[in-house]
Amino acid sequence: MTSDTTEIALARTLQPQEVASVLTRVAEIRPRVQCLTNTVAQNLTANMLLAFGAIPSMAIHVDEVAAMAEGAGAILINIGTINAESELAIPKLLEVARDHGKPVVFDPVFVELSPLRRHIAGQVLRLPDILVRGNTTEMAALSVDLEAAKGVTRVTTGKVDRIENESASFSVAHGHPLMTRVTGIGCAAGALIAACCAVEANKAVAAAAALTAYGIAGEIAAERCRGPGSFEVELIDAVAAMDAATLAARMGT
Amino acid sequence: MTSDTTEIALARTLQPQEVASVLTRVAEIRPRVQCLTNTVAQNLTANMLLAFGAIPSMAIHVDEVAAMAEGAGAILINIGTINAESELAIPKLLEVARDHGKPVVFDPVFVELSPLRRHIAGQVLRLPDILVRGNTTEMAALSVDLEAAKGVTRVTTGKVDRIENESASFSVAHGHPLMTRVTGIGCAAGALIAACCAVEANKAVAAAAALTAYGIAGEIAAERCRGPGSFEVELIDAVAAMDAATLAARMGT
Amino acid sequence: MTSDTTEIALARTLQPQEVASVLTRVAEIRPRVQCLTNTVAQNLTANMLLAFGAIPSMAIHVDEVAAMAEGAGAILINIGTINAESELAIPKLLEVARDHGKPVVFDPVFVELSPLRRHIAGQVLRLPDILVRGNTTEMAALSVDLEAAKGVTRVTTGKVDRIENESASFSVAHGHPLMTRVTGIGCAAGALIAACCAVEANKAVAAAAALTAYGIAGEIAAERCRGPGSFEVELIDAVAAMDAATLAARMGT
Repeated sequence: MTSDTTEIALARTLQPQEVASVLTRVAEIRPRVQCLTNTVAQNLTANMLLAFGAIPSMAIHVDEVAAMAEGAGAILINIGTINAESELAIPKLLEVARDHGKPVVFDPVFVELSPLRRHIAGQVLRLPDILVRGNTTEMAALSVDLEAAKGVTRVTTGKVDRIENESASFSVAHGHPLMTRVTGIGCAAGALIAACCAVEANKAVAAAAALTAYGIAGEIAAERCRGPGSFEVELIDAVAAMDAATLAARMGT
Repeated sequence: MTSDTTEIALARTLQPQEVASVLTRVAEIRPRVQCLTNTVAQNLTANMLLAFGAIPSMAIHVDEVAAMAEGAGAILINIGTINAESELAIPKLLEVARDHGKPVVFDPVFVELSPLRRHIAGQVLRLPDILVRGNTTEMAALSVDLEAAKGVTRVTTGKVDRIENESASFSVAHGHPLMTRVTGIGCAAGALIAACCAVEANKAVAAAAALTAYGIAGEIAAERCRGPGSFEVELIDAVAAMDAATLAARMGT
Repeated sequence: MTSDTTEIALARTLQPQEVASVLTRVAEIRPRVQCLTNTVAQNLTANMLLAFGAIPSMAIHVDEVAAMAEGAGAILINIGTINAESELAIPKLLEVARDHGKPVVFDPVFVELSPLRRHIAGQVLRLPDILVRGNTTEMAALSVDLEAAKGVTRVTTGKVDRIENESASFSVAHGHPLMTRVTGIGCAAGALIAACCAVEANKAVAAAAALTAYGIAGEIAAERCRGPGSFEVELIDAVAAMDAATLAARMGT
């Protein structure tokens, strides 16, 4: 499509040393990411954060999420298995984010299938400067709210990931189709983006760095596996082994 | 035991092309299975559904399970970690199943240990035409309710799986003992049966097809692993790679 | 540090045959461990218990945890993802433990980060003869409560694990740094300790046996893996394959 080609042409890709710079800061600072995420993806999300050099925390109780979030470097909100309790915890997390200037990544899983999720997403998107990561269907279902959101960074993942906000536009053409055949891989991407936002104030750069490293790890894992089960194992190993030399070699510059 | 031998003699096994036909339809239609399942098995259940070619969704919130289930091809209810919220969600799912004619697979995990689970199982089994998958102990604990259930399909998994309803009786003699040494493998079987029920109206055929393919994948995985950890990884890979040629070769016809 | 050296000098390490004796009893008796644990670690915890020869059960519902715990060999309470419902279930479990003399292992995950967790930990530690497993930070945050706890067994895991109660003191110098790079490995250690407490009345011996076997499995897994993803898989396999010969060979006696 012409318009797509134009937009991709305008979007730039990060240089290997830009990606490496963000990853190095994550490994050095070891930010804790407070994840309110779905119970399907919690384990993989925590393992990806650890492989990345970050620290996961997964509190959900309404009486402690604020305390857990206050000392965290970033906050992830993922509504994949939203329940009555996590629904009440979300406003607490948004309040901490607002009061303490914490970066927030929001993942509107299956928002197109549920009026409840659309309602919750509408509330979350009132927080300025939020980063939203979704697939094309999820982002389309939220288009009106995204238009109205102040300072939002839109991260649409797919064959080519697209990252856009008021001041920047990036595209990431790394990854592998197997990344859509293992549950929680997309959800864990949101957590890695959050870890990068904890160490890089430019949210578009943070997201592009996370998705570039993750996509390259996916390519490496795909070469080594023989199905989605071994792919997941290899992906964690490849994320943990990611370094500047691998980035440079795989990004071809 | 004589009576067992008689029943197994009467039960037939599916032909490879019958299994392949169901699997092909799952891969083409890609049914979404709405899973209200336990938090221990959610991740493996989702990954098995994806490896099988189906789409998992895992909503639990009372205010959205009905919406999530309405567009799904089948519904799975597994009470392995039933909590106050999922207990309230079950009647909503049963209502959607009744009103929209969705197939329902029920997995009464550890029903023999908990009066609460027996109570919930009794309510679920009032839904006509339900499929129940359990081990021998679980099925025995529910024998009175199963006798009274209208149009029920009983799937008793074990060394030989037995599938019975008013009009059909199948046995499946595939699988491997390691399938009982990894958590969630039985729970994921329920989800694969649900995926097959979404594309095959004869629930006994659907269950036999799912368990035959799964059992054969278990045999392949057991040959490749060196313990329960690698078995789980290999099982996902083997389910994803299952095809008509493998079925024919392993079913020896 | 001098004081540390002194204490380690006083602490003894188990002999291979003492570890093997506990493991053999677990494999023969197959105790069921009722785990109220966090949703991040539930799957790995269940798989480790199965690999160890024990049986996991993961009930959480306030109306059934007591029934599920009454027939169990031991109880694990882990507050990693404490929520409003599991908070209410804890007193029920403590009551069963008190009335039926069940061993209880308590894991105060991230207790240093949350006033709510400190409050809950204070309540749990009123149960006499409890075993607490935590890292140095968690144990330090609970020092006042631990001082006051009657008959408590303190298990502080780290590079060298230390196990102490009124009558015994053990140290375990096995393990590998990768054990801190995979989520839930520490939480699963608590479950293995609980399984050993179900078959060995001396809680310090039970904990030392579990941590010795687990640490040695970690060393074996580290030799076979190439990152945290494959480490987790190899660790489950190594736990399942642990036997007296491996213990003797690795413990160098």
